[in-house]
Amino acid sequence: MKQVNTDTLWSHLNSIREQGPLVHNITNSVVTNFTANALLATGASPLMAHAPEELEEIVSISDCLVINIGTLDAKQILSMEKAIQFANQKNNPIIIDPVGAGASKLRTETAIKLIQQSNNCIIKGNGSEIMSLASLAMTPSKGVDSTATSNEALTAAQNLIHENNNIKVIIITGETDYVISNSQSSSHSNGHCIMSKVTGMGCSLAAITGAFCSNTNDYFKASQNAVNFVGLCGELANEKSNGPGSFTISFFDQLHNLTDQEINNNLRFNKC
Amino acid sequence: MKQVNTDTLWSHLNSIREQGPLVHNITNSVVTNFTANALLATGASPLMAHAPEELEEIVSISDCLVINIGTLDAKQILSMEKAIQFANQKNNPIIIDPVGAGASKLRTETAIKLIQQSNNCIIKGNGSEIMSLASLAMTPSKGVDSTATSNEALTAAQNLIHENNNIKVIIITGETDYVISNSQSSSHSNGHCIMSKVTGMGCSLAAITGAFCSNTNDYFKASQNAVNFVGLCGELANEKSNGPGSFTISFFDQLHNLTDQEINNNLRFNKC
Amino acid sequence: MKQVNTDTLWSHLNSIREQGPLVHNITNSVVTNFTANALLATGASPLMAHAPEELEEIVSISDCLVINIGTLDAKQILSMEKAIQFANQKNNPIIIDPVGAGASKLRTETAIKLIQQSNNCIIKGNGSEIMSLASLAMTPSKGVDSTATSNEALTAAQNLIHENNNIKVIIITGETDYVISNSQSSSHSNGHCIMSKVTGMGCSLAAITGAFCSNTNDYFKASQNAVNFVGLCGELANEKSNGPGSFTISFFDQLHNLTDQEINNNLRFNKC
Repeated sequence: MKQVNTDTLWSHLNSIREQGPLVHNITNSVVTNFTANALLATGASPLMAHAPEELEEIVSISDCLVINIGTLDAKQILSMEKAIQFANQKNNPIIIDPVGAGASKLRTETAIKLIQQSNNCIIKGNGSEIMSLASLAMTPSKGVDSTATSNEALTAAQNLIHENNNIKVIIITGETDYVISNSQSSSHSNGHCIMSKVTGMGCSLAAITGAFCSNTNDYFKASQNAVNFVGLCGELANEKSNGPGSFTISFFDQLHNLTDQEINNNLRFNKC
Repeated sequence: MKQVNTDTLWSHLNSIREQGPLVHNITNSVVTNFTANALLATGASPLMAHAPEELEEIVSISDCLVINIGTLDAKQILSMEKAIQFANQKNNPIIIDPVGAGASKLRTETAIKLIQQSNNCIIKGNGSEIMSLASLAMTPSKGVDSTATSNEALTAAQNLIHENNNIKVIIITGETDYVISNSQSSSHSNGHCIMSKVTGMGCSLAAITGAFCSNTNDYFKASQNAVNFVGLCGELANEKSNGPGSFTISFFDQLHNLTDQEINNNLRFNKC
Repeated sequence: MKQVNTDTLWSHLNSIREQGPLVHNITNSVVTNFTANALLATGASPLMAHAPEELEEIVSISDCLVINIGTLDAKQILSMEKAIQFANQKNNPIIIDPVGAGASKLRTETAIKLIQQSNNCIIKGNGSEIMSLASLAMTPSKGVDSTATSNEALTAAQNLIHENNNIKVIIITGETDYVISNSQSSSHSNGHCIMSKVTGMGCSLAAITGAFCSNTNDYFKASQNAVNFVGLCGELANEKSNGPGSFTISFFDQLHNLTDQEINNNLRFNKC
């Protein structure tokens, strides 16, 4: 498949809508439907598959792999490891969403193990989750730390990237989102707090990041575009809604309908 | 339970709304909720159950069985085979939705095996999926073939039915939908392309076909009514929506509210 | 965490919105997303986790446990039993939703077993489900009994509570809902029949009851508030909707937005 044009969110979004990259997800049972619909509304093709017997074939037709550990168990870990192995052979980007890392040893250790196995790894997590992964590179994490400051998480992310060549980008979500690579970082302030009242918003960002990282090598620019896209759509969807139910519906409509003019009038992000 | 009146979509729909047939689903994890709500909005009763220990009892109270292989694994296949065995004993209709057949050997071979085991089998798939099943009856399929023409898929479906007495009806979905039995076929043109931007629309057609095939032996007429119902509701829902999010909501409302007049003014289908 | 103020629905709801109790769910695959969103819209924090390896840590940070047997299997039963054991050690309330008890031996027997293991047990079920559990305390149940009268179910519930000290409250749902403790009972008439056309409404009541029973010992008052909250939000949401799709959206908005004035103008419940 030809490379996408990552220059701007608008050019990149159009590339995705034309190409419909196939995003293979092994994700948690809470957000499976939400994730698939978010990818469809973006213009990508979702594929959910976890049976070890078919992973080689499924990965062979996929443009990226999205791994989400939100409802992890031993059987799912085996599927994830196998899918990562095949994605590495294809040199595909692998997005890891370490949901709840820090809340249990199983989650923290599994997230770290899966990250270490992924050649082209993009991580998306909130401050606490990123902090909990930092035992990869630094001193052991503080466990669940929902009060992680942006600065702490930023430092943890930068250390993780510097000490692990396979980690290409880390996205830290919060009131302000951050995108960090080995040499660059940016802050992104679109979005709205209602997004935290709907389950799967962060998970859909991870999956959409997979769509944006497909068919490009510029994972930093692709991740920036994905963060801008989801934040902007969330912000605009909120203006048309009365609560978390109607927000969700507007969000899907907005992912599907976002225009160049809406991007130009509303996008806010900065180099750090 | 008394037989439903399949004469027209309206009479059939009213029978379903009065009787509330119990539709037993073993389906994929992406669409479980969507499928249950589509059945409820239609007037049927959804039942999701997969534990081998309870399948005999669950099938004994069910009016049909719907099997969907969208997120297949070895454990689920065992449940599906057991449920089919009990449904056969009751002479219940069995709807098979071979999601992704052609995308992996596991899916293609499992779909074929489950179809062969089902005495009263109704298949619902897109052109590529139906083509991939054709190795049942013809030369091996071409694998994933998203460019299958309607003519190719129609021929494959007719061959499948002629060479397998247990296959009563095949529904091929696409821009135009087809319903094919041993002696008849029809084309159905209601619907809207937005339906392909919401996950589970095809899966809900399979489940709703189960509701329509309950308590009747006229699976061809029942399948026609189901295809007309879903296509018409999708088309009307689109007129009240602004994107895939609001479309989904309107679709559920429309399934619940469809009137005789809306049917008479909008329904389009033809004998082939 | 400090105790919540259960005096009125309004005071209790505000306590929940301030504290954001962590509700750990092991639930069925149909309603996982719906349940998480219902808890978020209420003001609680949902947590779905089932891996045996992490249950001790997950329960240690949770304020209550919600068990729903709607898509039960042998593996899930092991997780449920383990989670109950840890919740007992913390003296946490445990809400059991015996979905489909009576429809299969597996469901009935598992529901009874899990209830017997739970020290602070709150049960939420429809009349038939509660009747099917009565073999715990009385003569064997009549199996699936969808025509259970309110009186039969009420008697069954009272017997269950009197003969099992660990059962603190039973909620019976139906056109009128009942809340029953060892010494008190009340009837609740808010709600609307459209609620039976959306899957997961009862399951969300169970989960929300978990949120209301967190950080209080007054499980009877907490359960009354939960039943009032869900019934009232359902009733008000129906006024803003055109069918089961738009109802669902309005319901989530209403859970998030319910005001003191709406409560005062619309709440209806009585001591039995």
